[in-house]
Amino acid sequence: MKKFVYSFGGGKAEGNKDLKALLGGKGANLAEMTSIGIPVPPGFTISTEACAEFNSLGGRWPEGMTEQVGEAMALLEEHAGKKFGDPSNPLLVSVRSGAAVSMPGMMDTVLNLGMNQDVLQGVAKATGNPRFAWDAWRRFIAMFGNVVMGIPGERFDRLMIQRKREKGVESDTELDASDLQKLCSDFLGIYRDEVGKPFPEDPQEQLKLAIDAVFNSWNNERAIKYRQINNITGLLGTAVNVQAMVFGNLGDDSGTGVCFTRNPSTGENKFWGEFLNNAQGEDVVAGIRTPMPIERIDEFIPGIYDQLLKIKEILERHYKNMQDIEFTVERKKLYLLQTRNGKRTAAAAVKIATDMVDEGLIDEKEAVLQVDPNLLDQLLHPTFDPDARKSARVLGTGLPASPGAAVGEIRFTAEDAEAAAKDGKKVILVRDETTPEDIGGMSVSQGILTARGGMTSHAAVVARGMGRPCVAGCSALSIDEEAKTCRIGETTLKEGDVISLDGAQGVVMLGAVPTVPPKLSGEFARLMEWVDKFRRLQVRTNADTPEDAARAREFGAQGIGLCRTEHMFFQGDRILAVREMILAGDEEGRRKALSKLEPYQRGDFEGIFEAMEGLPVTIRLLDPPLHEFLPMEPEAQEEMAKVMGVPVETVRQKVNSLKEMNPMLGHRGCRLGISMPEIYEMQVRAILSAAIAVQKKGKKVLPEIMIPLVGDVKEFSYLAALTRKVAEEIQEKEGAKVEYLVGTMIEIPRAALTADRIASEAQFFSFGTNDLTQMTFGFSRDDVGSFLGTYYEKGILEVDPFAVLDQEGVGQLVKMGVEKGRSARPDLKVGICGEHGGEPSSVAFCHKVGMNYVSCSPFRVPIARMAAAHAALKES
Amino acid sequence: MKKFVYSFGGGKAEGNKDLKALLGGKGANLAEMTSIGIPVPPGFTISTEACAEFNSLGGRWPEGMTEQVGEAMALLEEHAGKKFGDPSNPLLVSVRSGAAVSMPGMMDTVLNLGMNQDVLQGVAKATGNPRFAWDAWRRFIAMFGNVVMGIPGERFDRLMIQRKREKGVESDTELDASDLQKLCSDFLGIYRDEVGKPFPEDPQEQLKLAIDAVFNSWNNERAIKYRQINNITGLLGTAVNVQAMVFGNLGDDSGTGVCFTRNPSTGENKFWGEFLNNAQGEDVVAGIRTPMPIERIDEFIPGIYDQLLKIKEILERHYKNMQDIEFTVERKKLYLLQTRNGKRTAAAAVKIATDMVDEGLIDEKEAVLQVDPNLLDQLLHPTFDPDARKSARVLGTGLPASPGAAVGEIRFTAEDAEAAAKDGKKVILVRDETTPEDIGGMSVSQGILTARGGMTSHAAVVARGMGRPCVAGCSALSIDEEAKTCRIGETTLKEGDVISLDGAQGVVMLGAVPTVPPKLSGEFARLMEWVDKFRRLQVRTNADTPEDAARAREFGAQGIGLCRTEHMFFQGDRILAVREMILAGDEEGRRKALSKLEPYQRGDFEGIFEAMEGLPVTIRLLDPPLHEFLPMEPEAQEEMAKVMGVPVETVRQKVNSLKEMNPMLGHRGCRLGISMPEIYEMQVRAILSAAIAVQKKGKKVLPEIMIPLVGDVKEFSYLAALTRKVAEEIQEKEGAKVEYLVGTMIEIPRAALTADRIASEAQFFSFGTNDLTQMTFGFSRDDVGSFLGTYYEKGILEVDPFAVLDQEGVGQLVKMGVEKGRSARPDLKVGICGEHGGEPSSVAFCHKVGMNYVSCSPFRVPIARMAAAHAALKES
Repeated sequence: MKKFVYSFGGGKAEGNKDLKALLGGKGANLAEMTSIGIPVPPGFTISTEACAEFNSLGGRWPEGMTEQVGEAMALLEEHAGKKFGDPSNPLLVSVRSGAAVSMPGMMDTVLNLGMNQDVLQGVAKATGNPRFAWDAWRRFIAMFGNVVMGIPGERFDRLMIQRKREKGVESDTELDASDLQKLCSDFLGIYRDEVGKPFPEDPQEQLKLAIDAVFNSWNNERAIKYRQINNITGLLGTAVNVQAMVFGNLGDDSGTGVCFTRNPSTGENKFWGEFLNNAQGEDVVAGIRTPMPIERIDEFIPGIYDQLLKIKEILERHYKNMQDIEFTVERKKLYLLQTRNGKRTAAAAVKIATDMVDEGLIDEKEAVLQVDPNLLDQLLHPTFDPDARKSARVLGTGLPASPGAAVGEIRFTAEDAEAAAKDGKKVILVRDETTPEDIGGMSVSQGILTARGGMTSHAAVVARGMGRPCVAGCSALSIDEEAKTCRIGETTLKEGDVISLDGAQGVVMLGAVPTVPPKLSGEFARLMEWVDKFRRLQVRTNADTPEDAARAREFGAQGIGLCRTEHMFFQGDRILAVREMILAGDEEGRRKALSKLEPYQRGDFEGIFEAMEGLPVTIRLLDPPLHEFLPMEPEAQEEMAKVMGVPVETVRQKVNSLKEMNPMLGHRGCRLGISMPEIYEMQVRAILSAAIAVQKKGKKVLPEIMIPLVGDVKEFSYLAALTRKVAEEIQEKEGAKVEYLVGTMIEIPRAALTADRIASEAQFFSFGTNDLTQMTFGFSRDDVGSFLGTYYEKGILEVDPFAVLDQEGVGQLVKMGVEKGRSARPDLKVGICGEHGGEPSSVAFCHKVGMNYVSCSPFRVPIARMAAAHAALKES
Repeated sequence: MKKFVYSFGGGKAEGNKDLKALLGGKGANLAEMTSIGIPVPPGFTISTEACAEFNSLGGRWPEGMTEQVGEAMALLEEHAGKKFGDPSNPLLVSVRSGAAVSMPGMMDTVLNLGMNQDVLQGVAKATGNPRFAWDAWRRFIAMFGNVVMGIPGERFDRLMIQRKREKGVESDTELDASDLQKLCSDFLGIYRDEVGKPFPEDPQEQLKLAIDAVFNSWNNERAIKYRQINNITGLLGTAVNVQAMVFGNLGDDSGTGVCFTRNPSTGENKFWGEFLNNAQGEDVVAGIRTPMPIERIDEFIPGIYDQLLKIKEILERHYKNMQDIEFTVERKKLYLLQTRNGKRTAAAAVKIATDMVDEGLIDEKEAVLQVDPNLLDQLLHPTFDPDARKSARVLGTGLPASPGAAVGEIRFTAEDAEAAAKDGKKVILVRDETTPEDIGGMSVSQGILTARGGMTSHAAVVARGMGRPCVAGCSALSIDEEAKTCRIGETTLKEGDVISLDGAQGVVMLGAVPTVPPKLSGEFARLMEWVDKFRRLQVRTNADTPEDAARAREFGAQGIGLCRTEHMFFQGDRILAVREMILAGDEEGRRKALSKLEPYQRGDFEGIFEAMEGLPVTIRLLDPPLHEFLPMEPEAQEEMAKVMGVPVETVRQKVNSLKEMNPMLGHRGCRLGISMPEIYEMQVRAILSAAIAVQKKGKKVLPEIMIPLVGDVKEFSYLAALTRKVAEEIQEKEGAKVEYLVGTMIEIPRAALTADRIASEAQFFSFGTNDLTQMTFGFSRDDVGSFLGTYYEKGILEVDPFAVLDQEGVGQLVKMGVEKGRSARPDLKVGICGEHGGEPSSVAFCHKVGMNYVSCSPFRVPIARMAAAHAALKES
């Protein structure tokens, strides 16, 4: 029979930290901590395999699981010295989800499970604290009702608030035992009312239902959405951790806290976190009471801080990483409830990684692997201009929950934020506090501002994970969600007003405060040196201007992998010449118009060659269909006709004649080059003459001319011959020689399928995975939005294949293309220039299939470098 | 050194009939005939390899060819007993093209080569016929000038006509030696005028230039076009045949003819053809003089007919096929100049094949292989209703050059015919006589009518090859091409008027004469029995109605491979319910509208299941995007709004919201089924309840439910589960069981790439090669016309990949799909339902990759059966 249940307790555990896929991160680490002697309440973990079988069996427990849970519970009772459901010596347990990848707040947790009317009495007696027992009971009823039975949490919350108001008190702790007793009775009424049955008194039934609820929470909407946003795929399900309860709310010598072993914002090597005295764990995370800094814990429970520092030492040495821990002190005794690698800002990640090398905790390779490539993005983005910042009007301050500079229009709900972002607006999400339901809105916002919650509140943790600036717990903020307005101190703002957030300082400012480019730290440079030492894949950039090229070069780009020439066609007066060419009735007319464009193009290329001196520059010849250069709107057509001195009918006819049913599959790319060779001739002349001009200044140029949209070797042969002929002519005319290559994009499935034939003529390949993805999936990038949402909801797709390379399908064509290409030309230079070139999992794939380089947008160059290093290090 | 030149003569030959690829059809058969003792003038053949090298060397002869030609010429001189360029005993030669596949009139020929002012005298002396010598000289100058130097032929023709007019004579033969001498001098003047140099007097130079011209003619525009139309690919080039001239114009005991060993229109086993007395070969083919039936040849040159009959026997026994021969009689001596398998009508092909089996010439397998699958199309098309034909007004009669019934609007040039056909019009091409330049116009016409030319004229031969009805040599016809009118007898017709042609009777009728479905001959049934015995691939049909299904079944379809359900949505009032569904704001509204459609759909399926009793019926669930069911034009939108009782704005908004950039890659197929499962649910209910209803009548039904546009197994799993759930419900409700399958189209590249995963859930695959071709090439079928012409011209594509399956690219995905699919499910049923399913070379490919069936339109079913048999026979 398959093993589904893994026990831990009494210094021994069946699991360990390497079993994350099976036990989830939490379960694996509870087992690991137990084994290395950290104080952990005993318990057991039900595996992710059980969850997968549960789901495939339509919600039944797999065979044998019932027995294994029974045995594990018996062992747990033994280690705890208490009995589940026994009023005379009651054991209460928590039931928590825990997937292999951390998904904070996404799935369900039930605490104090095992209580009923009888056990309640036993707890009161055992703790000598009837108020505590009633409080635990009301918490359990509400949590079980909400999480397991789906009763809206507000129904319970509202009663709680009402009771406090009636009594004229502020805090939960001011309610006494009889208040809570009355509340429990009301809560049970709500339960019966909503569920249509009385509350289950049998602890075994409670346990069964709670485990089912956690299993089911794997496929709730927000969990699915979270996995999408974070590209979490390939997991079986969630594990379930059943663990003896320890209570931080048993009095003033109890408490609970959440800490990081180092500062997760700055990376400073200082134990960092918060605690709440006389409180249960969820009170910290939910941000309901504002917690104390961890340094002050000894003022309340002496001796704990030193114990925590010792545990920090043990954990960091053991895990070789900064840890995020949860602990509870029950009547002076410290228990660890969780440890995991802590989420951190990019700056912190860089500092921690380099510090740990200096401290001898890890080596350079481990340091590189410790930094998530996606994080680096943050470091490269602007900060506020210090001068402008001084004169900005500060509306209020809060906790510096996640660093960075954010400017945007305010929105008061996640839905509004998502809608505005879809319209291309930059928004800042302003909430009392965020909940897991807000994930979607947070991910599209520039920054997050909350009125409540601490440094480890939901908003803070999620924002740091996403790299979004966040100011949390801004007490001056009050929101009227209905009216879509808010006040911050003296100022009233309405939806759409612009504010700026300084997440590193916790400051909220009015209007759009100007920003300046980022300065990269010395630690960053040091880390990236190691990165470059370990990676094999080269990293180029997609850049169409000398400015972009120069910036990318600063970020470490080793060349241009994609220079799109069409953008150059739109600048200034050039579009007139382009339109003249399109309207021309014959080749001669087109040549005349093109001759006006040529000097501009030559100038563009000179600028780019100079910026990339000594590095290769891949220039793609004209790709889009011609209709993209003509106006679609009648007014614009009339204006164009006026400017060009032709009848508007001429413009209209041309627009109509160029209209296509499926322009993505139409007359563009090399097809255009073949119909109107004079266009490519002009571009090749411009490239070669620019190269010669720059070379004559003593600078090395390495142009790589790239022919787009090739599907058959004959398309390539025709245009390569044309290219080489023109290039020879220019070189002869100028009396100079330039080293140049002629290659092609592989972006049509047929090109990948016949890559051997194409490579026999082409000197390099660059995979255009945007188009390749479109055609391999049959998804139009422009139209896929109409069904992608449904596909996520129904679990048909987990991620957007335009963001993350589909290795299973598109990847086969890429692999085939590389292999067939190299079979015909062993030294074929191969790269990728689609959006995927800057996405870490896709970069790892490019490394694996043996590409020479990836090319991505300038800001993603460091990410790609890091991802390439990870791929190389993980290989060995 | 490579052998480029192959000699024949004196009863011996270096080549043979199996070397067609190398020597061309003409060259290989000249060699073969020489070896088997048929009288053939001696000569030599320069190989197609030489042509290929010539072209790749940019127009230079490959190394060694000059020497080999010299040696072969010496041998030729020896066999002929004459010397090339020697006035005292002059040898004249013909230089003809000849590719591996016959391309009549497509490439160039030069006759009488070797003449000059001196040789002229020698010829006059040798023949004792100065008039003949001058005639040969003027023919040579004109032909060389036209073919080799590109001087327009009319320049020479006009002079000839002028000279006859001046002399008041009708026929060329009435011009005497001095007339011709004067003409020669004028012709030389034209030559010098056009070329800028005097006519080359050196026979060696003439030969070199003529060979170059033939090589170059391989890539002239009309040759390229002919190869496209006839799907001729993969050839190296043309061979060149240099052969001693024999003259049919040396007096009344000379002549020339073109014959078929059996009747190429009906297949009757009777020697059939025409000859011209005292004429050169091109006079017959060009249709300039109207020839005599071959039966009358003995009236002019006694004894020849029997010689021809003996040669017919020898050739048919040797080639096991009906032969098309050219001969010349020079002063009573018979020479064969060509033999090849004769083009024939479908009816003739069937009769000849079955007759030859009965005559013991061939076996059943050879009979099947003798019939080109593409031909069968002709047999299945309508003939004129005999009653209507009786009362039709006959405008005129001509030769029954190619059988069949054609109805269409008249057009007077090939270009006009092509333009009208592009607009969807059915046209009849009316010409004085056709030339190779007219090929394009002929291929798009319903039928061809000419004023001049015989049964073996260009129009007749090409029309029979294409299966187009043709009436040739209609002497009552006179055309005014300028005015775009013609007279036939008493009637004047203008462009656009409709006529009907009876190609089997040679009759031209006014207006559209009604037609009746074809009756298939007993020979056809007998041949198709053999076909079915030899083929392994099953043949199904694409049919959406019971009528189509029944017709296809008559043609031998073994099931329906594609029943498209969307066409049913347009009939009558149904479109209203469809539009109501599209406009509905929610699922409930959609379900309400769908419930109106369901009875119709059920009825449709009942009809189809009944028609296909006992055979499988593959039904594709809804495929097109919803916008296709809404009107695009403002007026139509207003009408729709009125009919449906909604504001026109509602219709417009819906049309806009459904608009897509690339609908081919948009929200359609299974994507629609996943977003709006209620649509597929309705369809599955209709299929299953129809199946149960028909089954209850005691008829066997085999529904195969096909989910379109699947790219990922999860799409399929989701919809297959839905399908099976609905099917179970219906079966339970009706208390009946139906055998049914659930499978998918493989039409997206990703589906082929992940076919193993899809096959683990799908019970059958049907390759939708239309869409698969679109996405694999990145060609939109609707837009490809804008550049396909250029692609043909520049030699980038040779055939339309939407008509002929691209085995190199798309074929890889098909093969991969079959192999991966069967790896996961060894008994996976695999078919094809794209347009390619009825195209012979594509059917052969489907056979080769191991499909179970092909599916095609009803009229192509016999073609597919034949092609499948060919594939199976050629394999062994």
